[in-house]
Amino acid sequence: MMSSLTKYVKRMTNSIVASGVKHVVISPGSRSTPLAYAFASHPHIQVHIQVDERSAGFLGLGLAKQFKEPVALLCTSGTAASNYMPAITEAHYARIPLIVLTADRPHELREVGAPQTIDQVKMYGDFVKASIDFPLAEELEVSYRFVERQSVRLIQTATTHPMGPVHFNIPFREPLLIDFDLDVPSLSYERQMVGNVTVTEEQKQMLEEMRQEERGMIVVGELEIPIEKERFWQFARQLGWPVLVDPISQLRTEVPDDVMCIEQYDALLKDESYQQEVRPDYILRIGAQPTSKPLNQFIAKSDACLITIDASPHFRDFTAMTAIHWQMPTDALFSWESTNMPVRPYAKRWIEANAIAQKHARAYAGNDEGAYVKALAEHIPTGDVLFSSSSMPIRDLDTFFLQTDRDIPILANRGANGIDGVVSTAIGVQRRAERHTWLLIGDLAFLHDVNGLLATRYGEVDLTIVVINNDGGGIFSYLPQSTVEAHYEQLFGTPTNLKFEHIAHLYEAQYDHVDTAEGFVQALQAEKTQPLRIIEVATNRFDNVARHRQLWAAINDEVNRK
Amino acid sequence: MMSSLTKYVKRMTNSIVASGVKHVVISPGSRSTPLAYAFASHPHIQVHIQVDERSAGFLGLGLAKQFKEPVALLCTSGTAASNYMPAITEAHYARIPLIVLTADRPHELREVGAPQTIDQVKMYGDFVKASIDFPLAEELEVSYRFVERQSVRLIQTATTHPMGPVHFNIPFREPLLIDFDLDVPSLSYERQMVGNVTVTEEQKQMLEEMRQEERGMIVVGELEIPIEKERFWQFARQLGWPVLVDPISQLRTEVPDDVMCIEQYDALLKDESYQQEVRPDYILRIGAQPTSKPLNQFIAKSDACLITIDASPHFRDFTAMTAIHWQMPTDALFSWESTNMPVRPYAKRWIEANAIAQKHARAYAGNDEGAYVKALAEHIPTGDVLFSSSSMPIRDLDTFFLQTDRDIPILANRGANGIDGVVSTAIGVQRRAERHTWLLIGDLAFLHDVNGLLATRYGEVDLTIVVINNDGGGIFSYLPQSTVEAHYEQLFGTPTNLKFEHIAHLYEAQYDHVDTAEGFVQALQAEKTQPLRIIEVATNRFDNVARHRQLWAAINDEVNRK
Repeated sequence: MMSSLTKYVKRMTNSIVASGVKHVVISPGSRSTPLAYAFASHPHIQVHIQVDERSAGFLGLGLAKQFKEPVALLCTSGTAASNYMPAITEAHYARIPLIVLTADRPHELREVGAPQTIDQVKMYGDFVKASIDFPLAEELEVSYRFVERQSVRLIQTATTHPMGPVHFNIPFREPLLIDFDLDVPSLSYERQMVGNVTVTEEQKQMLEEMRQEERGMIVVGELEIPIEKERFWQFARQLGWPVLVDPISQLRTEVPDDVMCIEQYDALLKDESYQQEVRPDYILRIGAQPTSKPLNQFIAKSDACLITIDASPHFRDFTAMTAIHWQMPTDALFSWESTNMPVRPYAKRWIEANAIAQKHARAYAGNDEGAYVKALAEHIPTGDVLFSSSSMPIRDLDTFFLQTDRDIPILANRGANGIDGVVSTAIGVQRRAERHTWLLIGDLAFLHDVNGLLATRYGEVDLTIVVINNDGGGIFSYLPQSTVEAHYEQLFGTPTNLKFEHIAHLYEAQYDHVDTAEGFVQALQAEKTQPLRIIEVATNRFDNVARHRQLWAAINDEVNRK
Repeated sequence: MMSSLTKYVKRMTNSIVASGVKHVVISPGSRSTPLAYAFASHPHIQVHIQVDERSAGFLGLGLAKQFKEPVALLCTSGTAASNYMPAITEAHYARIPLIVLTADRPHELREVGAPQTIDQVKMYGDFVKASIDFPLAEELEVSYRFVERQSVRLIQTATTHPMGPVHFNIPFREPLLIDFDLDVPSLSYERQMVGNVTVTEEQKQMLEEMRQEERGMIVVGELEIPIEKERFWQFARQLGWPVLVDPISQLRTEVPDDVMCIEQYDALLKDESYQQEVRPDYILRIGAQPTSKPLNQFIAKSDACLITIDASPHFRDFTAMTAIHWQMPTDALFSWESTNMPVRPYAKRWIEANAIAQKHARAYAGNDEGAYVKALAEHIPTGDVLFSSSSMPIRDLDTFFLQTDRDIPILANRGANGIDGVVSTAIGVQRRAERHTWLLIGDLAFLHDVNGLLATRYGEVDLTIVVINNDGGGIFSYLPQSTVEAHYEQLFGTPTNLKFEHIAHLYEAQYDHVDTAEGFVQALQAEKTQPLRIIEVATNRFDNVARHRQLWAAINDEVNRK
């Protein structure tokens, strides 16, 4: 029995490793013991430990995020598996190949009231791309080969566009110990080989025709896999259109001098007359939709011919404006080669207006969230990584992270835009990147995944967390609910009045508390002396809104005067 | 639009309140605003706030737990809803009528990449008993009546055996504000009326025949709804069989003098020769299966006629020994009236052995987890509530919580036996009971749901948390994995080395750290001066096992000598 169990888990983990998995996040449990041993003793696997399975899910998601590599999770049976649900949901919508392994009890212990036993068969519903309820181990070559092939197929499914999570449900009968020294045969499986996708002659002709029109723009959201930036910018030069780049498009950083990179669209498009002036005839929108609400509203009202480009049939477009969908990976576009277009008046207007908005953003000063985010964006050195929480941080970055030639990957969980799992995702991103990482996060999101920090007790980290603490839900101040006094603080403000210093002490983090822009800049410049650093920035939910609105008004005013 | 939206949510919440919901746990969000307003402004609803939706789910579960009353949860769209999954899973297996309301986006924003939008239709799969995707609000009487009736039906479904969670998915289109002053018509719905269930003539005859056999026992696990204890004990007197009572059967407390209550079975049945001696011919097993592994193994090997009693067709029996299932609520048994049986030798042997084990348990001393749990069990005053975490705490209570005439409800999450959500469940139990509550919990379970404490920032609490801190996963020390040195501390021990004092400071809790039995007793006797109190008890994972085994050996030895 130990021999068949050992062969089963070793052949499964060998298949998983051969399919590209290098990291596995394990949450302690008994039923998962055979696979935990097989991973922990595998020479090509790096094991991460996280006892809170919800955080473990997001830690895996973070490890997979930047390069869209498959990363495995492993937990025991029962509600442990239910705790993966939030990360799986985010992975589904963010298209992350999360490889979810849940240990299960054998059939005779299912639905009979046995402890830590729930119905795990297809328990993640439509949030996973595929789910297999594996057999128990038995000494049968055809069964081992089934396990090998299905393991590879599941991971190939996860990494095929649209990428997404898959589920291995694996029952084990006691005893659960394995023989570490038993050798298993080498794998016999089909390697995944995928053809190149290039643009068609018809598409090339469309591109040649479209570029004759000056009123066109490229909008880039989060891309499905990293691209060669220089090739992208060459593509844009050929079209001769301004390129509106979302903070997580990766195109706001390492920006060449001679390209039409526009990052101030959120402020500019808040103004009705500017919107009218720059109405485009063509929009080429690549990847996920941008974060900016004004930009999305502008697209929705533009009446332009909107072409979305996305590797899968599931293009994302809540403006419902897409006229044509090009189903291909972004880099397929680069197979189109043409001459560069000159800068025409339409693009020039964008560039000028962008420069005005940049000037105001650079000059923005004060002790509010905008000023802090601006200071952070200016300070981050090349080579570091920036991870942004959802809600206000990503919106403030959209305004205050100006284009730069620095190399700073900017990432965020924008699949379902939750404020859950953010700390864990940032730690996963940091561990995969092996670069110092900055996390920009609000107080409620930080508290929501404070358990993400448990991972720092079991493995290395090099993270600075900037907590914008406005003591509650800051984003609601921008919504109509804030105009209704009744129940506001109870239902939306939700102040916790917690002192984050204690969390820093708990996790032995380097800690600073600041409440002025100068203090924040000093903190940013101070030496990082601990693996984990927390800079708490105290702000005021009510001031922020007014200050942001002043900035936008000043920008719109000057742009309109030009 | 505001008028139809207002009527929609007011008629829905009025129906929910009319169906027995008194408590709703709300997590802040924008899309859920109309319902949040309707609940917050309802005169018969008590609102609880919890920003972490995972903890919110368990807070609701705790409020519903003791009396199996329907309790509502409300969250916004997106991964907020995914975070309910662990509590829903536990509610499904623990049979708790959790009424889950998730706000959703309208159809035009679904599956198009809109922020905080996931496919919520039937997203909880088989873990809810029913799920309805409600319509958008429109000014149409038949639609309002549909909403009223389906709301009532869903809650009636949740409270019908086996009880369990149900799901309201409710889309809202902006704007989301309501008119607080608008009156709505009174409800027109069918009240739920359920008949009485009593035992049949055939069952009475079976009971009369069975009680002639002295080698019978009653085993009581967690019951589906609270029963009148005196009526239960009268039923037991009529059978004349010893009654083995699980810690969460509620039958270890308020125990009358003249009944055959056995609570030391876990220690006694660890011994092979005692097992042989007390092999029963009949077992009447009521409610969920007991916690004790030796007891379950004893039942599995007994070859007795096992009758399970459970209000639903889903009887729980992983021993696969059930011969006959009586599908009825526990109190149906009390319709059988007969004479009392005398104490026969078989029962007497149980009572004597139980007394021996009690004597050893009472004399148990030392600085290990057993001794601490024993001290706690002895100390808790009548009128307080005890909530136990899964894993080691419930097992130690099984050994060390001796039967008593004190009134102490003992509760635990034993649906799926997870260590998640324990802090929140205890807070929910405390708030519903309105009695001081003790939570007995290990360090990992405490950390897993440390966010449960966020609820204390938004509402009242009267809770003392006893954290048994053995720095890691104590239960694994009892399993075969502990005999394998390789990877043990990494995969199973998982020490965090965190100082819980900082968590106490964060939440402004009264805090004691003890590491001796005397110190613990002193702490127990000290005055509670804060709404939240944390007593951290430092123990050692390795000593515990050896000490527990000594106790069991001493008990078995003396019982065998008698």
